[in-house]
Amino acid sequence: MKESRIKVIVYGLGPIGISTAKILAQRKGIEILGAVEIAEDKVGKDLSDLIGISKEKGIPVSKNLGEAKKYGTADVVVHTTASFLEKVFPQLEEVISGGMNCVSSTEELFFPIRGAPEMTRKIDELAKKHGVTVVGTGVNPGFVMDTLPLFLTGVCERVDEVHIQRRVDASKRRLPLQQKVGATLDAEEFYKRVEAGTFGHIGLRESLQYLAVNLGFELDGIEEKVDPVISEKDISTEYFLVRKGQVAGIKHIARGFVNGKSVLSLDLRMYVGAEKSFDRITIGGNPSLEIEIKKGTPGDIATASILANSVTLAMHADPGLINTKCPLWPHYEKL
Amino acid sequence: MKESRIKVIVYGLGPIGISTAKILAQRKGIEILGAVEIAEDKVGKDLSDLIGISKEKGIPVSKNLGEAKKYGTADVVVHTTASFLEKVFPQLEEVISGGMNCVSSTEELFFPIRGAPEMTRKIDELAKKHGVTVVGTGVNPGFVMDTLPLFLTGVCERVDEVHIQRRVDASKRRLPLQQKVGATLDAEEFYKRVEAGTFGHIGLRESLQYLAVNLGFELDGIEEKVDPVISEKDISTEYFLVRKGQVAGIKHIARGFVNGKSVLSLDLRMYVGAEKSFDRITIGGNPSLEIEIKKGTPGDIATASILANSVTLAMHADPGLINTKCPLWPHYEKL
Repeated sequence: MKESRIKVIVYGLGPIGISTAKILAQRKGIEILGAVEIAEDKVGKDLSDLIGISKEKGIPVSKNLGEAKKYGTADVVVHTTASFLEKVFPQLEEVISGGMNCVSSTEELFFPIRGAPEMTRKIDELAKKHGVTVVGTGVNPGFVMDTLPLFLTGVCERVDEVHIQRRVDASKRRLPLQQKVGATLDAEEFYKRVEAGTFGHIGLRESLQYLAVNLGFELDGIEEKVDPVISEKDISTEYFLVRKGQVAGIKHIARGFVNGKSVLSLDLRMYVGAEKSFDRITIGGNPSLEIEIKKGTPGDIATASILANSVTLAMHADPGLINTKCPLWPHYEKL
Repeated sequence: MKESRIKVIVYGLGPIGISTAKILAQRKGIEILGAVEIAEDKVGKDLSDLIGISKEKGIPVSKNLGEAKKYGTADVVVHTTASFLEKVFPQLEEVISGGMNCVSSTEELFFPIRGAPEMTRKIDELAKKHGVTVVGTGVNPGFVMDTLPLFLTGVCERVDEVHIQRRVDASKRRLPLQQKVGATLDAEEFYKRVEAGTFGHIGLRESLQYLAVNLGFELDGIEEKVDPVISEKDISTEYFLVRKGQVAGIKHIARGFVNGKSVLSLDLRMYVGAEKSFDRITIGGNPSLEIEIKKGTPGDIATASILANSVTLAMHADPGLINTKCPLWPHYEKL
């Protein structure tokens, strides 16, 4: 049986893009046509060398999508360039206008209708016009704090509140992540960076809004807080030493309120020296449920996997911008 | 905003049908048009009296669907009459031919393509012909041992094996369930009933096949075993005393093998005196995941809830027989 394979262009070759490309290169049903990356040290190289898989020989890394398309039009573009919608908007426009479905790790794209309704509508309309599907996904946003909790509420008659905790021991993660959570900073410097807007987990607000909308919660307020987790002892990682009193990582909490009560809370703590990693989802309702993912959902590989797995979704779903939304719950709002 | 409500007929008024009707009666977007039940002590009664909710006054229980349809054609029939596909097949035909979507608790309907391919195709074709959707769902099959594990694999690059345990302390459940699991029998009588085919959890095989197909596992064998859990002490429930040495309940295990290795196992134990109820899902792959639902998913309310929640799904999904299937994983087989 020789079925035609799904043709993919990989757009963005940072750590997540590389991981996703590795997975895709090993899937029988997928053919990688091209790769795009702006970093000059990667342009012109062979993708096979970057991902360490020889199967896909002969795919030079292009410096933009137009160049990559010379090798053919893809069915799906797997896009992993940046976190903010405004930044990737022109890239998405180019992908969609080229008639290609898009799976993106852009955090703000997961559920942008509340935060950026104008851009959301533009993307949705453009996608419908070109008959393609746009999916924003990842492990968080995209799974632990939104689609998984919502899926779980499928067995609830009534949902009063949902609280989610994610604890990630950053000690075992790659250097950029340890730096990203602020390890070794002092608290003052940490708060300066928070104020500058360069700190905090992107997409937490989108996860919260996704839950609120899909659960039919009319929030009268959202509160978001980013604080440092201060190390209580000296901790050595592979890369550096975090001293007692220094910042070990980040505590980012988003809450949604109805009548002054916190009915939604998303509590994310990523820091060096966390005693254990876990994800915990508590649903208050009928029935109430408490779910724990022991050791947590490993961030990098889970994001690369859900991106790779969503290629099929992008091929089969109706045109438009979708929210990897579970259709079981009756209160969902149409875009 | 006065939107038209979804019109529902409730077909089957056993405990699950009653629970589901109660939920539906309280949903603003749903109007219960009629109810069907063959039990003579219920026919002619008012549904409101049976479900204890006065809102839906004036819905007499009909003895068959034809009679119920005099009150109008429903958008969705919520069907909870029996567990076996062969038995409900004529009922489903009548619902579908009447142009109504169907949400059913029939366990074998959850994923019947492997066990009953002919009937499956007939239902699917008839549903497509009449432009309606047929959904088989519930907590098990329908959630704990199939759709939830599959949803979780959405963050896995590779899945090698999935093992699921469900432990239910039957002491706190209603009398029919305690009887259904064989409490107070002796082991000999238990096995006689197993041989007579009147014992065991219905749908376990369907859950296993659903996982195998959706994960792309080509099983070379399925093994199913039903054994008694023997009580190690005297245990009193609300209804009777289970003596030490008597049957406390049931242990039903289904396994799927690839190259002689058990890559799928569904281990269900429901018995009086279980120390704790829980659901546990272990996924071996990359990444591996271990998930626990503390105290487990409560069976009756969860089934009624997922049936009620699936009314929306039945209204919006494409025509045909669907499997409440998660579209994230790339290996799924089309019907």
